[in-house]
Amino acid sequence: MSDAATVLERCAALGEISEQGFLLRRFGTEAMRRANELVGGWMREAGLEVRIDPLGNLIGRLGDGDRTLMLGSHLDTVRDAGRYDGPLGVLVALAAVERLGEPLPFAIEVVGFADEEGVRFGTAYLGSAAVAGRFQVEWLGLHDDDGVALAQLLEQDPAAAARDPADLLGYVEVHIEQGPVLERLGEPVGVVTAIAGQSHATVRFAGEAGHAGTVPMDARRDALAAAAEWVLAVEAAGRPGLVATVGRLEVDPGARNVIPGAATLTLDLRHPDDDERGAAVAALRGQAERIASARGMELEWEDAGWEAVAMDERLTALLGEGLPRLPSGAGHDAAMMASITPAAMLFVRCRGGISHNPAESVEEADVAVAIDVLERFLHAV
Amino acid sequence: MSDAATVLERCAALGEISEQGFLLRRFGTEAMRRANELVGGWMREAGLEVRIDPLGNLIGRLGDGDRTLMLGSHLDTVRDAGRYDGPLGVLVALAAVERLGEPLPFAIEVVGFADEEGVRFGTAYLGSAAVAGRFQVEWLGLHDDDGVALAQLLEQDPAAAARDPADLLGYVEVHIEQGPVLERLGEPVGVVTAIAGQSHATVRFAGEAGHAGTVPMDARRDALAAAAEWVLAVEAAGRPGLVATVGRLEVDPGARNVIPGAATLTLDLRHPDDDERGAAVAALRGQAERIASARGMELEWEDAGWEAVAMDERLTALLGEGLPRLPSGAGHDAAMMASITPAAMLFVRCRGGISHNPAESVEEADVAVAIDVLERFLHAV
Repeated sequence: MSDAATVLERCAALGEISEQGFLLRRFGTEAMRRANELVGGWMREAGLEVRIDPLGNLIGRLGDGDRTLMLGSHLDTVRDAGRYDGPLGVLVALAAVERLGEPLPFAIEVVGFADEEGVRFGTAYLGSAAVAGRFQVEWLGLHDDDGVALAQLLEQDPAAAARDPADLLGYVEVHIEQGPVLERLGEPVGVVTAIAGQSHATVRFAGEAGHAGTVPMDARRDALAAAAEWVLAVEAAGRPGLVATVGRLEVDPGARNVIPGAATLTLDLRHPDDDERGAAVAALRGQAERIASARGMELEWEDAGWEAVAMDERLTALLGEGLPRLPSGAGHDAAMMASITPAAMLFVRCRGGISHNPAESVEEADVAVAIDVLERFLHAV
Repeated sequence: MSDAATVLERCAALGEISEQGFLLRRFGTEAMRRANELVGGWMREAGLEVRIDPLGNLIGRLGDGDRTLMLGSHLDTVRDAGRYDGPLGVLVALAAVERLGEPLPFAIEVVGFADEEGVRFGTAYLGSAAVAGRFQVEWLGLHDDDGVALAQLLEQDPAAAARDPADLLGYVEVHIEQGPVLERLGEPVGVVTAIAGQSHATVRFAGEAGHAGTVPMDARRDALAAAAEWVLAVEAAGRPGLVATVGRLEVDPGARNVIPGAATLTLDLRHPDDDERGAAVAALRGQAERIASARGMELEWEDAGWEAVAMDERLTALLGEGLPRLPSGAGHDAAMMASITPAAMLFVRCRGGISHNPAESVEEADVAVAIDVLERFLHAV
C-alpha cells in the first residue's frame, strides 16, 4: 500500500472514533482519549517516543538535537464532521517522518492538538494556545453544555504544556484547504500566505414573550423576527474576501405557541485585512442596534477578535517556491504557534471545497504530493 | 378574605410548584403530581370527592344526579409561564362551587386537565382529548426531549378516561383572555363566541453545512438564512384577525464556525374563519417553496389543523346576556369538550393582554366578577 493510501486508511479508522453516531470528538472526551491511543500506537510503530502533555495534546518525538521542529494539526472535530479536517495533517506529518532514513540534526515532534475547534468550551486553539504559553487561567472556569468545567478535565497544570520558543525551529502544518481555490486552480497543494483575522460575537435580542394566539401582530416584540432581520443583514454583508456567518441561533422560550421573548445568535466574520474586518463588524453591530431600536427591544453584544497572522516567509519558501500561494479563511493551530516560532502551512485540495461536513473528501494522489512536499522540506530545512 | 382574594392566593401557591426555577409544569411530571395534590386538597376541604382519571386529570365531584355539569380548565403550563393561564379557571370554578348552599338537581365536577399546552409531547389538549374520547393510540409512541415515551407515563388505559356524552349537561371554562380586547373595552369579563381555528406546521429547510471561514458567500446554501427569510414572511402575513408565529427554530449542526446545514421551524397560524386560515397557510407554504428553490435547498413541510369551534348559544346566554362577546385566538380545553357536550367560556381581563409570560396579571375585582357570574350560572342552568 502507498504511504498516501495508508494515510487515508488511518483517517477512515479515526473517523470511526466518535462520541455519537455522527462524527464528533470534543476536548477531554473518551473519544479523544481513544483517538490519542490509536494515533499514539502508529507513532510508536514508527519509532517515535510518545507522550500526552498536560493539556491532552498527543506528542510523538523522533531524534535528538538542541532544537525541535514541530509538525502537526489537531485531532478534535466539529459536530457531524468530516474525517480529514485536522487528522490529515497529523497523519501526513507522520507519513513524512516514517520515510526518514538517517537521523536529522534536529529533533522532530509530530503533534495532535487536543482542541482546535473549540466545540466544547467555545475556545478555539485550546491545545496550541497551551503549547504557545497563551493558556488563560480564566478558561479553567468555562463550562460545557452539561455543566462540566474545563478545570475538571485537567489533571495537570496546563501552563506546564508551554514550550520554550528558544528550543523550537519552527512549526509546519498540513491541512485540507476547506475551500474551493486549489480545485479551481487545478492544483493538488498550495502554501498559505496568512491566516485571516476573525471576529466572533454573541448577540442577544430581548423582546417580550407572549401568547401566539392572542397578542395582535402590532402589539408584539418578537425577538426571533428581529434576529431573522439581522441574519439576513449578516448574509448581505458578505463580499469577496469577507465571509460572515450566523452558525447558532437559540430561541427562548422556544415553544410553538409562544412568541419568542429572546433570541441569541453567534457571528463569525473573517477578512485577511484587520481594518476591513473591524469596519464590517462595527457596521453589523450598528444594524443590530437599529433593528432592536425599531422594534423596541434590548440588544446585548459581546465580541472578540483575532488578528490576521502572516506565515513565515523562509519556511514557506522551503515548502516549495513554485507552489500556488493562498490565504486561509479558516483559523488553524499555526496561527497560535506563529506567536512562538516561525510557522508555515501546506494546504491540500479537497473536493468541492466542502469541510465541516461528512462529505469532506481528498484524493489519494493529492495526499501523496503533500507527503512528498513535506519529506523534501524536512531535508531542506 | 374575599373569595377572589383566596383564588389569587391559591394561584400564587400553585405558581411556586414547578420543574424549574421559572414556572414550568409539564404533563406527567412530579410538579403536576404536586399541583394535583394541592388543588385536590382544596377540593376535599370544599366537600368534593376527588379522583385522578387514567390520563392524570384531577376531578372533584359534588352532589348527585343523573347528569353532570363540568367546570374547569388545565393545571399544566408553558415554559416560563404566568400563574393564571389554566389554574385561574380551575380555582374560580372551585370558588363558585364553594358558595353553593343547597344541593343542585345535577352533579358538578371541577376538573383540572393534565395537559392543555402540549409542551412535553407537542400534543395540545391531551387531557381534554382523553375525556372527550378522542385520545389517539399513536400518541402513546410520542417521546419527549429526554426520550421518555408518553406510554411510560400512563398506568391505566387512557381510553378509560372518556366520558359518556349522555351523562353530561355541559362544560364551562373560565380563563384569562390572554389578549387585550377586554382591557380596551374597559370590561372585567366577556363571553367567548368561538375558538379560532389553528394551523400548526413544522418546516425544515435543508441546505449544506460547510466551514464558516472558507466557503465563499456565493457558494453557500445556508439553511438559517433561508429560514430567516421565511420568519419575516410569516411576520408579514399577520393582519387583523390573523396571527402567525414562528415560536421554535433549531439550527443543525448549530456551531459558531459551521454554516447551518438545516433549520427546522414551527408555524402557528390562527384565524376565526377556516377558509381564510387555509388560504394563508397555503400562501406561506408557497413562499417557503420559493425561498428553498431560489437557494437550491430542500423543503420539508408537515402540517395539521384544527377547525374553529363555536361555543353553545344557550349556555353562553346563561352566562350573561349583557356581557361583551369576543372570539378566542387561543385554543382551550373547551374546544375539545365541545365535541361531546355543549360548551361555553368566560374570559377574565388580564393586564396588557400579556400571557405565556411571568408578567401575567389579573385584578382581584375582575376575579370577583367572574365568580359571581359563574355562581349565577350554576343556579340558572
